[in-house]
Amino acid sequence: MELVTTDICIIGAGPVGLFAVFEAGLLKMRCHLIDVLPQVGGQLSEIYPQKPIYDIPGFPTINAQQLVDGLMEQIQPFHPGFSLAERVNELFQLEDGSFVTRTSDDTEVHSKVVVIAGGLGCFEPRKPVIDGLEQFEGKGVAYMVKNPEAYRGRKVVLAGGGDSALDWTIFLADIAEEVTLIHRGDTFRGAPDSAEKVFELATEGKINLILQSHINAIKGNGHLQQVEVIGRDNETTVIEADHLIPLFGLTPKLGPIAEWGLNVDKSAIMVDTVDYSTNVKGVYAIGDINIYPGKLKLILCGFHEAALMAQSAFKHVYPDQKLSFKYTTVYGVTAF
Amino acid sequence: MELVTTDICIIGAGPVGLFAVFEAGLLKMRCHLIDVLPQVGGQLSEIYPQKPIYDIPGFPTINAQQLVDGLMEQIQPFHPGFSLAERVNELFQLEDGSFVTRTSDDTEVHSKVVVIAGGLGCFEPRKPVIDGLEQFEGKGVAYMVKNPEAYRGRKVVLAGGGDSALDWTIFLADIAEEVTLIHRGDTFRGAPDSAEKVFELATEGKINLILQSHINAIKGNGHLQQVEVIGRDNETTVIEADHLIPLFGLTPKLGPIAEWGLNVDKSAIMVDTVDYSTNVKGVYAIGDINIYPGKLKLILCGFHEAALMAQSAFKHVYPDQKLSFKYTTVYGVTAF
Repeated sequence: MELVTTDICIIGAGPVGLFAVFEAGLLKMRCHLIDVLPQVGGQLSEIYPQKPIYDIPGFPTINAQQLVDGLMEQIQPFHPGFSLAERVNELFQLEDGSFVTRTSDDTEVHSKVVVIAGGLGCFEPRKPVIDGLEQFEGKGVAYMVKNPEAYRGRKVVLAGGGDSALDWTIFLADIAEEVTLIHRGDTFRGAPDSAEKVFELATEGKINLILQSHINAIKGNGHLQQVEVIGRDNETTVIEADHLIPLFGLTPKLGPIAEWGLNVDKSAIMVDTVDYSTNVKGVYAIGDINIYPGKLKLILCGFHEAALMAQSAFKHVYPDQKLSFKYTTVYGVTAF
Repeated sequence: MELVTTDICIIGAGPVGLFAVFEAGLLKMRCHLIDVLPQVGGQLSEIYPQKPIYDIPGFPTINAQQLVDGLMEQIQPFHPGFSLAERVNELFQLEDGSFVTRTSDDTEVHSKVVVIAGGLGCFEPRKPVIDGLEQFEGKGVAYMVKNPEAYRGRKVVLAGGGDSALDWTIFLADIAEEVTLIHRGDTFRGAPDSAEKVFELATEGKINLILQSHINAIKGNGHLQQVEVIGRDNETTVIEADHLIPLFGLTPKLGPIAEWGLNVDKSAIMVDTVDYSTNVKGVYAIGDINIYPGKLKLILCGFHEAALMAQSAFKHVYPDQKLSFKYTTVYGVTAF
């Protein structure tokens, strides 16, 4: 159990949550970020780190991970705290109006302001329908690769047809003893050069590629041992496997946020565009997780929301101080 | 007289006007930009091209001119048109709802949508109160340095205490025959290292630095010849000068925009945050020139405003088409 006291607790360490640290820092407010993912960057780092983004103003093109790296460097002067690979489970307000945010690892963040920058939500993985799948979770079945080294010398089955499935197949081919990729179709939705690489690895015998097939059953004695696959002509193949990693994308779920008494519309948190505040005083929602008239789910819009949020949050953190607006071009950035 | 027909006429080619081209381009709308300044970039290029900006998301630091260059490269696929060094004089609406924007050089832009991205307005220089100053405008007196080469081998007097005064004093010290800087105070508001450099130049005898003084009168026969300065103890100094450049900043003036029937509050155009539309259908205002509850005059906020504007402008440009929202990361950028 870790206890953290800060000015602003930011739930979600994606690009918008990260930039909120900068806007808060300009106003001398400290931040602590919590994210269920094991690294910062949200969807950018988790889903498409090597994909180019074209609509970040000033960058004709930038890879998702480069943007995350730039943001991390930009907020470095303000030394934010991070609790990564932790899920926020509880949020409650104390009598003095401040908040306590509690995570799955019993971290408790005490803060004057809470900013929900949760993106699509809790990144719930989309799970294939396989009998008994959940009983093997943590016992061979995982929906994201947190530490590739865990697969060294093991037999791994991946399933899926998008970039995650392709990228991890390529990556794990060098690490695991045996890699099998199972895909329903015979072409891939992911980047063409990744797909090409996967076909190459299969031709070279470095991976097993099973197309037009799906997983029918999984078996094991306490830990996963076998994956049973059904092909196009209903033929069954049994694969010996220590690990199964179904990579069918993430599905937006608000998760425990749904229970915090915030006004929600279609899995998004309703906010006031004056400052992106929710209906709970001191709680803000910025980025893809909020909704308001005209809302666009663009990173650049989340940046704007973070800036306006910070001005308003200042009143909660420093109720007795007058905010004086200063341009960084004129006054620079004062680290702390 | 030039006739231009386009989808969107953007008034102001600063960073926000430039980025609007990108957001419009993603939705297949063409743009033409008009700016009173001789180059793109607005305040960034005109006032502080070499200054670092710290609050552009993803750039821990970027020089103003670099940001402008990045934006120009980013919008290049959409080939916007430019009418630079032209002031917008007239805007009127035709019976079919489309607009005609007419400039000081008789350029006429016909468009379905008008986007005012005019920043501070028309960049009216703040003029010192000196008898007969205006009669020497263009005859030795100028309020901005458009072409430094025009001062080669000449005697130049600058006045002011901010960055522009410091920067141009340093720059022109190498070009002009004689440079004099006059400042009311004895310390400078501009960047400390620029101020230090100016004091150094004065110590080395490369410029004349006259502090705690102001210009009392200017004289000449058709063209400026003398600048008369009054010091702290009321002593008068007469300086031979071919040029006087008072650099007291720019004052926000809406200029002719004030006469277009738009709802205006304190020299800013009132907009609806759903799409940053004004009270005139088809006319939008984005960036520093608009006002709404929570407004911050930040470049990054203007970027957001440009994105929401483009979604709404689409309905005017393609009234019969349904807008489908696509991410550049998934679909890339289609040039035209």
